[in-house]
Amino acid sequence: MKNLLIIGAGRSATALINYILDQARQHNFFVTVADADIALAQKKVGDSSFGRAIWLDASKPNDRRDVINRHDVVVSLLPPQMHLELAQDCIALGKHMVTASYVSKQVFRLGDEARQRALVFMNELGLDPGIDHMSAMQRIHQIQAKGGHISAFYSYTGGLVAPESDDNPWHYKFSWNPRNVVLAGQGTAQFLEDGKLKYIPYRRLFRQYRLVDIPGMGEWEVYANRDSLLYREAYGLKNIKTLFRGTIRHRGFCDAWNALVRIGLTDATFPIVDSDQLTYHDLMEAFLGISQHTGSVKDRIAKLIEVDPESETMKKLEWLGLFSKRRIKLSNATPALILENLLLEKWALQPQDKDMVIMQHEIEYELAGRKRRHTSTMVMKGENESDTAMARLVGLPLGIFVKLVMESKINARGVQIPVMREVYEPVLKELEEYGVVFKDKDEAI
Amino acid sequence: MKNLLIIGAGRSATALINYILDQARQHNFFVTVADADIALAQKKVGDSSFGRAIWLDASKPNDRRDVINRHDVVVSLLPPQMHLELAQDCIALGKHMVTASYVSKQVFRLGDEARQRALVFMNELGLDPGIDHMSAMQRIHQIQAKGGHISAFYSYTGGLVAPESDDNPWHYKFSWNPRNVVLAGQGTAQFLEDGKLKYIPYRRLFRQYRLVDIPGMGEWEVYANRDSLLYREAYGLKNIKTLFRGTIRHRGFCDAWNALVRIGLTDATFPIVDSDQLTYHDLMEAFLGISQHTGSVKDRIAKLIEVDPESETMKKLEWLGLFSKRRIKLSNATPALILENLLLEKWALQPQDKDMVIMQHEIEYELAGRKRRHTSTMVMKGENESDTAMARLVGLPLGIFVKLVMESKINARGVQIPVMREVYEPVLKELEEYGVVFKDKDEAI
Repeated sequence: MKNLLIIGAGRSATALINYILDQARQHNFFVTVADADIALAQKKVGDSSFGRAIWLDASKPNDRRDVINRHDVVVSLLPPQMHLELAQDCIALGKHMVTASYVSKQVFRLGDEARQRALVFMNELGLDPGIDHMSAMQRIHQIQAKGGHISAFYSYTGGLVAPESDDNPWHYKFSWNPRNVVLAGQGTAQFLEDGKLKYIPYRRLFRQYRLVDIPGMGEWEVYANRDSLLYREAYGLKNIKTLFRGTIRHRGFCDAWNALVRIGLTDATFPIVDSDQLTYHDLMEAFLGISQHTGSVKDRIAKLIEVDPESETMKKLEWLGLFSKRRIKLSNATPALILENLLLEKWALQPQDKDMVIMQHEIEYELAGRKRRHTSTMVMKGENESDTAMARLVGLPLGIFVKLVMESKINARGVQIPVMREVYEPVLKELEEYGVVFKDKDEAI
Repeated sequence: MKNLLIIGAGRSATALINYILDQARQHNFFVTVADADIALAQKKVGDSSFGRAIWLDASKPNDRRDVINRHDVVVSLLPPQMHLELAQDCIALGKHMVTASYVSKQVFRLGDEARQRALVFMNELGLDPGIDHMSAMQRIHQIQAKGGHISAFYSYTGGLVAPESDDNPWHYKFSWNPRNVVLAGQGTAQFLEDGKLKYIPYRRLFRQYRLVDIPGMGEWEVYANRDSLLYREAYGLKNIKTLFRGTIRHRGFCDAWNALVRIGLTDATFPIVDSDQLTYHDLMEAFLGISQHTGSVKDRIAKLIEVDPESETMKKLEWLGLFSKRRIKLSNATPALILENLLLEKWALQPQDKDMVIMQHEIEYELAGRKRRHTSTMVMKGENESDTAMARLVGLPLGIFVKLVMESKINARGVQIPVMREVYEPVLKELEEYGVVFKDKDEAI
C-alpha cells in the first residue's frame, strides 16, 4: 500500500500531516491532503515531495469517490455525521478507513461487510476517545495476565491550559472544539458504582462532580461522561462493579459552569428572537424571574442561582462580561451559541500560551486475595497556540496507526476501536518517542 | 373545486372527516381519505357515497404526487416534518393545502411561490394553534375598531380531563399526543412582560407557573409556551408591552411534573442501556446520587428533589408506580420514552371518560383614557374517549376552512396562519353551531 488520503486539513490535521509526511519520506508512501480550502491543504503539505494538496468538496459523492478510488487508505477528519457515507464509499471501493470519531450505530452495522471485504475501519483513535482506550487496555490486559481480578475502573481526561499560561479566573482556555465544551454533558450520564447503575441528568452533572488527585498536580474536579457503560463490553469487563469515565476540570470550574447551566445559557434548542438587539445585561435580565424586580441584575442572578454575590462563581460570571452593557453580535442565536461566541473571545489561547492534557486511569483489582490499586497518569503540555498537546495527542495515534496499516502490520478487520494488543502496543510504544509517557503506580489498598 | 384529499386517517382525523362528509352531501364535493392503513381510512369514511378510502404511503413521492394531482385541495394530518415535501408537491401541482401544524421556516419560505401560483397554504388551523389565533384576532380587531389601545395580551389553552372523569391524583389524562406532553417545554420559553423580554429555561418552567382564574372553573396553573414572541408581528401587536401564551394545568400538576423533570425522567436525548433489565425502582435508584445510600428509594428521591416525603407531589409519583418493582418493558429506551410508556397506561382516557378543553384570552387596553380588561373564555367537554373535545376542536376548524376554500370564498394567498377576518369570522361563526362558544367579559380595571 502506497497511497494515503487525508480528508480535512483543519486545526486537528496538522500533527497528523506533519508526522505522516515525515514517515512517507522513510517508507516511500505518498500522501494526498484533500480539503475544500485548497490553500489550507497546500500550507499543511508545504514543499514535501511526498505529499500534495487537492481541492475536494466531500459532500459531493462523485468527486469524493473519484478521489478515494485513487488511494489505499483513507483518514477522515470530517465531522462525524459524514462518516457513514464515507464508510459506504470505502466498502464499495475496497479501502481501509481511519477516524478519531465515536462509532455511530450506522457505521457499526457495516462491520460484517467490512470484514467480508478484508477491510479495517478503525475509529475512536484520537486522544479521548483513543489514547484512553489504548493505555487502559494495555494496563487491563497486564493486570489480567498476572491473575488480577478487576473490580473498578476509573478513567479521566481533560484538555486544559498549562499552569504557566493560566491567567483567567476560570483557569480554562479552549484547546479544542468550543461547541463541544458548551454543549458538554447534555443528556444523561450513565455509569456503574458498586454494582449499581447510576444516571446523572444534565441538571445535576456539574453539581455531582468528584475530586481526583493527580500525582504532582494536586486536586482536580471530574464530571461524568455520559457513555461509561458502553465500554463495559468493549473493554472485556462485563462483570466489573464500578466503571466510570469522566472529564477533568480545574477546581472551581464545575460550580461556575453549573451557574451558566442554571441561568439557562447552555440551551441550544431555541433561538432568542432578535438577539442582536440585546446587550449581555439585557440577556441576563431576561432570564430573571418576573417577580424579582429589586437590586442589580448581578445580585438578582446570584439570588436566582442561589450563590453568594461575592462568591468566586459570581466573579467568574462577571469576568465573562455577562453583566456588561455590550451588544450581542449574533442575531436569532440560541443561548448556547451566544455563550460560545463570548467564550471564544474570553477563553482563546494566546499565541504563546501552552495547553495541557491530563489523563489518568485508576484500576482496582484483587490479586492473590489482596486488594490493589493501579494508577496510571499522563500529563503533556503543548508548545504554543498552534502546536498544542491536544492536536498532537489526537493526530499522532492516527498517524502511527495509518503507518502500520500501510505497512500491512494490522490484521484486525471490520469496524473496530483500538482495544486490541496488535494496535495499542506499537502505537503506545511509538507515542513514547513523542513524549506521551504514562507514570504508573501500583499499591496495596 | 370538487375534490378534497385528506392525508392521514388517525385519531385527529375523525371529527374532520365526519364534518366534511356531511358537508359533501350538501355541497356536492367528493372526499378522498388516504392512509397507509387502508382499513382505518375505510372505517372513517364508512358508507358515505361522497367519500372513498385509498391506500397511500405518503413517504413515496411518486405515489403521493399521483394522488395529489387528482384533487383540488389537500388537508394534511401527517407529522409536521412531512409538510415541506407535501407543500413542494402542492406548489408544483397547483393545489391548495391546509394543516393544523406550526409553520416551519422552510414552509414559510414557499410563501412567494404559493402567492405567484394563486394558492393558499393555511397552517396552524386546529385548536392551539388555530382557534386561539382566530378568537384572539377577532377580539383584538374589535377592540382596535372601537379605538382601544392594547397594552397586554395573555392567552391560555389546556387539553384536560373533565371534572366528572377526573379520578387520579394528577387530575390529568391524555387527550392528545402523549409524546408532546412528555417533552413539553424543552427549550427556552420567551415572552414579554412590562416591556421587557423574559426567558424561562426548561429547568425553571414548571416552577415559574402562574395562577389563573377561569370564571366558573376556579384557579388553574399556567406554564409559559416557548413561542409567545413569534406572534407579536402576526397579531399586529408590535408595540405591545406584555405578550404571554401558556398552557393550562390543574392545581398541583406543575409541582409534580417539575419533580419528574428534576429526577431526570424527561430526557429524550440518550437511551438507557438495557432498560428492559430494570424495574422502575431500579431506575429511581439509578437517578439517586452516589453518596445518598440510606433510607428507602422513595425517601431519598424526596430528598434529592427537595420535597416533603408526605407531600402531594410524592403521592403523585408513587401513584405512577415509580417506586414499584415492576419491570420496564422497553429496551434501550430514553428516560422520556420510559415515562411516556408508563403515563400512557396511567393517564389513558377510559371509554366513557370525557375530556375538557379550556381556552382563555385576557386583553388589557386603554379606551378614552380608561384602563379596561377584556376576558374571553371557552370551555368544552367531549362525549367519550373517542369523540373528544380535543379532536373536535382540532378537526372542525380545518373542515370549515376547507369548505370555504372549496366554495372559493377565501381570497388569502401564500403561506398563512388564520389571523385575517375573512377566515376567522366565518370559521368562528360556524364553530358556534358545534358548541364552541366564548363567554366575554369587559370591565374597567
